[in-house]
Amino acid sequence: MAATTGDTGLSKLQFAPFSSALDVGFWHELTQKKLNEYRLDEAPKDIKGYYYNGDSAGLPARLTLEFSAFDMSAPTPAHCCPAVGTLYNTNTLESFKTADKKLLLEKAANEIWESIKSGAALENPVLLNKFLLLTFADLKKYHFYYWFCYPALCLPESLPLIQGPVSLGQRFSPKQIQALERAYDDLCQIEHITALPYFLIKYDENMVLVSLLKHYSDFFQGERTKITIGVYDPCNLAQYPGWPLRNFLVLAAHRWSSSFQSVEVLCFRDRTMQGARDVAHSIIFEVKLPEMAFSPDCPKAVGWERNQKGGMGPRMVNLSECMDPKRLAESSVDLNLKLMCWRLVPTLDLDKVVSVKCLLLGAGTLGCNVARTLMGWGVRHITFVDNAKISYSNPVRQPLYEFEDCLGGGKPKALAAADRLQKIFPGVNARGFNMSIPMPGHPVNFSSVTLEQARRDVEQLEQLIESHDVIFLLMDTRESRWLPAVIAASKRKLVINAALGFDTFVVMRHGLKKPKQQGAGDLCPSHPVASDLLGSSLFANIPGYKLGCYFCNDVVAPGDSTRDRTLDQQCTVSRPGLAMIAGALAVELMVSVLQHPEGGYAIASSSDDRMNEPPTSLGLVPHQIRGFLSRFDNVLPVSLAFDKCTACSSRARSGSRRRHLGRRFSAQLQSAPGPGGAAARGREGAGTAGEAGLALRLVARNCRSASG
Amino acid sequence: MAATTGDTGLSKLQFAPFSSALDVGFWHELTQKKLNEYRLDEAPKDIKGYYYNGDSAGLPARLTLEFSAFDMSAPTPAHCCPAVGTLYNTNTLESFKTADKKLLLEKAANEIWESIKSGAALENPVLLNKFLLLTFADLKKYHFYYWFCYPALCLPESLPLIQGPVSLGQRFSPKQIQALERAYDDLCQIEHITALPYFLIKYDENMVLVSLLKHYSDFFQGERTKITIGVYDPCNLAQYPGWPLRNFLVLAAHRWSSSFQSVEVLCFRDRTMQGARDVAHSIIFEVKLPEMAFSPDCPKAVGWERNQKGGMGPRMVNLSECMDPKRLAESSVDLNLKLMCWRLVPTLDLDKVVSVKCLLLGAGTLGCNVARTLMGWGVRHITFVDNAKISYSNPVRQPLYEFEDCLGGGKPKALAAADRLQKIFPGVNARGFNMSIPMPGHPVNFSSVTLEQARRDVEQLEQLIESHDVIFLLMDTRESRWLPAVIAASKRKLVINAALGFDTFVVMRHGLKKPKQQGAGDLCPSHPVASDLLGSSLFANIPGYKLGCYFCNDVVAPGDSTRDRTLDQQCTVSRPGLAMIAGALAVELMVSVLQHPEGGYAIASSSDDRMNEPPTSLGLVPHQIRGFLSRFDNVLPVSLAFDKCTACSSRARSGSRRRHLGRRFSAQLQSAPGPGGAAARGREGAGTAGEAGLALRLVARNCRSASG
Repeated sequence: MAATTGDTGLSKLQFAPFSSALDVGFWHELTQKKLNEYRLDEAPKDIKGYYYNGDSAGLPARLTLEFSAFDMSAPTPAHCCPAVGTLYNTNTLESFKTADKKLLLEKAANEIWESIKSGAALENPVLLNKFLLLTFADLKKYHFYYWFCYPALCLPESLPLIQGPVSLGQRFSPKQIQALERAYDDLCQIEHITALPYFLIKYDENMVLVSLLKHYSDFFQGERTKITIGVYDPCNLAQYPGWPLRNFLVLAAHRWSSSFQSVEVLCFRDRTMQGARDVAHSIIFEVKLPEMAFSPDCPKAVGWERNQKGGMGPRMVNLSECMDPKRLAESSVDLNLKLMCWRLVPTLDLDKVVSVKCLLLGAGTLGCNVARTLMGWGVRHITFVDNAKISYSNPVRQPLYEFEDCLGGGKPKALAAADRLQKIFPGVNARGFNMSIPMPGHPVNFSSVTLEQARRDVEQLEQLIESHDVIFLLMDTRESRWLPAVIAASKRKLVINAALGFDTFVVMRHGLKKPKQQGAGDLCPSHPVASDLLGSSLFANIPGYKLGCYFCNDVVAPGDSTRDRTLDQQCTVSRPGLAMIAGALAVELMVSVLQHPEGGYAIASSSDDRMNEPPTSLGLVPHQIRGFLSRFDNVLPVSLAFDKCTACSSRARSGSRRRHLGRRFSAQLQSAPGPGGAAARGREGAGTAGEAGLALRLVARNCRSASG
Repeated sequence: MAATTGDTGLSKLQFAPFSSALDVGFWHELTQKKLNEYRLDEAPKDIKGYYYNGDSAGLPARLTLEFSAFDMSAPTPAHCCPAVGTLYNTNTLESFKTADKKLLLEKAANEIWESIKSGAALENPVLLNKFLLLTFADLKKYHFYYWFCYPALCLPESLPLIQGPVSLGQRFSPKQIQALERAYDDLCQIEHITALPYFLIKYDENMVLVSLLKHYSDFFQGERTKITIGVYDPCNLAQYPGWPLRNFLVLAAHRWSSSFQSVEVLCFRDRTMQGARDVAHSIIFEVKLPEMAFSPDCPKAVGWERNQKGGMGPRMVNLSECMDPKRLAESSVDLNLKLMCWRLVPTLDLDKVVSVKCLLLGAGTLGCNVARTLMGWGVRHITFVDNAKISYSNPVRQPLYEFEDCLGGGKPKALAAADRLQKIFPGVNARGFNMSIPMPGHPVNFSSVTLEQARRDVEQLEQLIESHDVIFLLMDTRESRWLPAVIAASKRKLVINAALGFDTFVVMRHGLKKPKQQGAGDLCPSHPVASDLLGSSLFANIPGYKLGCYFCNDVVAPGDSTRDRTLDQQCTVSRPGLAMIAGALAVELMVSVLQHPEGGYAIASSSDDRMNEPPTSLGLVPHQIRGFLSRFDNVLPVSLAFDKCTACSSRARSGSRRRHLGRRFSAQLQSAPGPGGAAARGREGAGTAGEAGLALRLVARNCRSASG
């Protein structure tokens, strides 16, 4: 009910305020913007909302912000008017709380006032539809604090209702209503807009005309008694107009009160009832206009929204409760990563890391720790290969296993590790392959089943290496690293190798050969800088394609290092912290290499480079990190590829030479003085030769078919 | 049934071999010996077994080895004869398989033969009871491979039975049997042994005499027709003697066949049947003795036991199947640790590490990684304190949590972390306290409940620090480290502090003050070396009691660093590998300090000491490790304690000064320009002052009551 003004006895016009309707999609998009674009930027941002005309009775007038709010060129939905807003997203809850809301409101009000005075609002009435949104997004908890404001300029005094609101159906004949609909639709069509927020109306019994505000003078030319103005009204209440009318009435008072003492207002409401258009529920009334024509100062303004409790205060939505926990976990993990880009490493290319597919050969102490660090970096594609079962001594050192995994003989490590990753983070794509990696020097039982199994294992390994980007060698023997190293070298995959001693470790990237077309890896025309820069130091500025692999410094071929090991040699006996350090460094090395514009071809950093400008945003890209826990020291050696290396030389990679190499391997194994003396040679020696040959033949065959 | 000899028509004597009976206790003790004593030593070891006389019919004759087998002075059980053996425990399955069993048998046979020739076996007949045990203990899998041998010298030909075995009850009158029993018992008593394995017998209808072998000549003086010898027989079979008789008959043939062509043998069997002694089931028979008197060469020998399949091969017991999985897990974890002592660090004092009680303040990225490394080191007593709940972003970086722990608002970290440790290793004693650590600079709500809670938290924290040996500071704010640092300093506990930047970390031990009696920490009479050695470098040879703490370099008191942090400052934004490295190093630093004979008082190693002889078997004991991941570098700075430090100075530790310090703290906080400007001071400032004062008063009160 309208209140009455004491002096005139007339009711005063009151307005139904907007309810802010901030969609989940809006918060989601704000989260993305904050993470990826705004970061720590607190500058005001343009956003866009809309209000709908056509609600059923009972719904409050809403100013809606959706995911599209950040796209200023997004189309406005049908039956909606746009509103342009300013987002003030603070970095901290503290600055959200202490933001000067009075000042923000005054600033917005002034802009509206200026657009009225200058006439800009006549040209573009949307300038009257301004809103503010103050937010703080606590992305750790998915709590969003916000305070919405729809600034409304206040007239010097409240407006007396000369004629109270009645429905248009009471005032207009059906014919007039039809004419109004047609006139409004035509004007929208001419203007190429979905809805006209403010307009002018002229009517008599036979016709209804509508016009744009900017045509006021022409439209009302000669009119002496009264003018009618129209507002596209989001409100449903029979007695009250909605909020948008406020600034329009201020415009009217400012611009037209010198000519007219009152104005008739049509709150145009356009809904569909039972399949038919219904404009008759629009309301129409007449108010007295105050004399404002010559006031130069911006009127005071109101508009900060009350909160749910009805007080002047901010609102908060807790989206964590209504989000799918798995999606929430994904967002949270992303958040932690993206925070790195905000202030610390703005140039960090997270996509390069997150999208990388990692193959972990070995799911023991190193494998578990590497997988954990990869998860921390947001890597989503992790595959384990291991043939061992989880034993009772594993869980305390292999952080993906628990006591229960050891019962009944122990679960296969590769499968259990993949399962555990899913339990840690359901968004990960983790797989496990419970298979052996064929090794030179290890006997293959020559029953057909086992030979067939070895053949399948080699093929499977090749396929796995082919379908991943980075290959981690994390086994506990030298020789098991050989075949994957050969295959990965031939497929030019980045290989990260980690190996533990008791209190020492090596973490290294294998040299990454150039494709054959560029001269079999001996020259690198696309990176002349690398060779040009070769300085005085023998190991300075060695590009990635000249770096050695784990086997480059070997003079003997890998034999069976497990067959005569004592207990302390069977277990990887190392200081318990060592695997965590080496595992973490292996992943950090991978990340640094991925951040380098040349990736695996990057020039290797050495210890001497520690004081130089680092080549990536994350720092150095060494060839090797050799750590000495007893001295808490790391050194960064660099070594060149050996051109006769059994794993990475062009001979090893070339299919035509593989069979020869297999024989050379076997010969070395048979002639080498084995630890077990005479018994160590003989039948097992033959098995070894056959097996190494088999592996090599399989590699050769597949490589030929790949290149053919 | 005895076979017949072709030439004489007489049955040949045959013997029932021993079954080796290796008790679980034996394998357990072997495991312990191997882990703690033998390690890689493959030298033969003396062990001891026994055989029982008195089994019910149907049981095989057993040579039993129990846990006592390794104690050569252990008493022999009643009704048992000892056997002395040699254990050949190999380091590898390979050397187990390739051991020269023929040679081992020949060696043992020769020793028996020599004892017969020299007469030593007459003096000590146990020398005839010799056995060999070849073993390989796969302590990773709890598989024990073994091959047992009871060497029996072979007579040149098989022995014809002149008179087949009959039971003693058929031959002796009850009176004779009683006399035999008494004579045997008396001799044992005189000799102070539980049973006499071999003896001599003379009898007629009225008496039975027994004597020691060494008294042969006197005992059988004048005897011309036949002698009777007795063997304490583990066998139950009515037709066959047990294995021990074999070497005794060789002795008899060698020594006495020149005088007698045959010998009567009593297989003395002494059991209790229905409560009464039964010797009557002993058997007695007569065999022809071969002429061996002048043969100087050791006869050939047999004795390697057949396996379960009846073939000549080793046996294996898999104790993992019959062990309690939880005990198995404990043994396995112990094994991995003890392996370090075998070859790599023989002087490592594992007990010092395993028995240490660790309090982890903070169960986030650092806390989880520290706990994991402690588990790897076998630490069994781990307590967490944290007041946070597990959020969705945690599990990928905090390796004790999983996705499920985040649901429903998240489990309390401290409790979930303790639960997880139990799941990883049931033998751990892990507890979690879901409580806040009172912090200066953080407001305490002055409602009585919250104040009371803060008071309880301080008391709880004091009790926890009191009841642990090493305090890890692993929180994500500076100020939360202050109160524990003060309390731990006053209680002289070793403090290990770890803190992360984005790609840098510090891991340090706090200086450990000397007890007051020694001059308030300024002098150290018990370690004059430390001050004497103060060299030219300012930071060389600084003993532990002069080292600084985390707060020594601070010029400002800890304030509330959380209240105005942006999102990237709220989360500990760091490279994911960093916490693993720092967590691992924090534990490794603790272990190194514990290994130093002076513990926390140890002189701090610096980067300059890296090339010097390390002070512990594990290497350096630095004061601080500062790591730079972008350079893959660590430095080891050393810094002196600040005598006005707000945390570790004698002022801070002294109860009488605490209240003053509390006021000083508060004053600093109120006068310091806070990051939030005017709003950051005021009411919260007052709360801060009160709270810091409260904490300090509580500490002071408790310390007074402890010292009074």
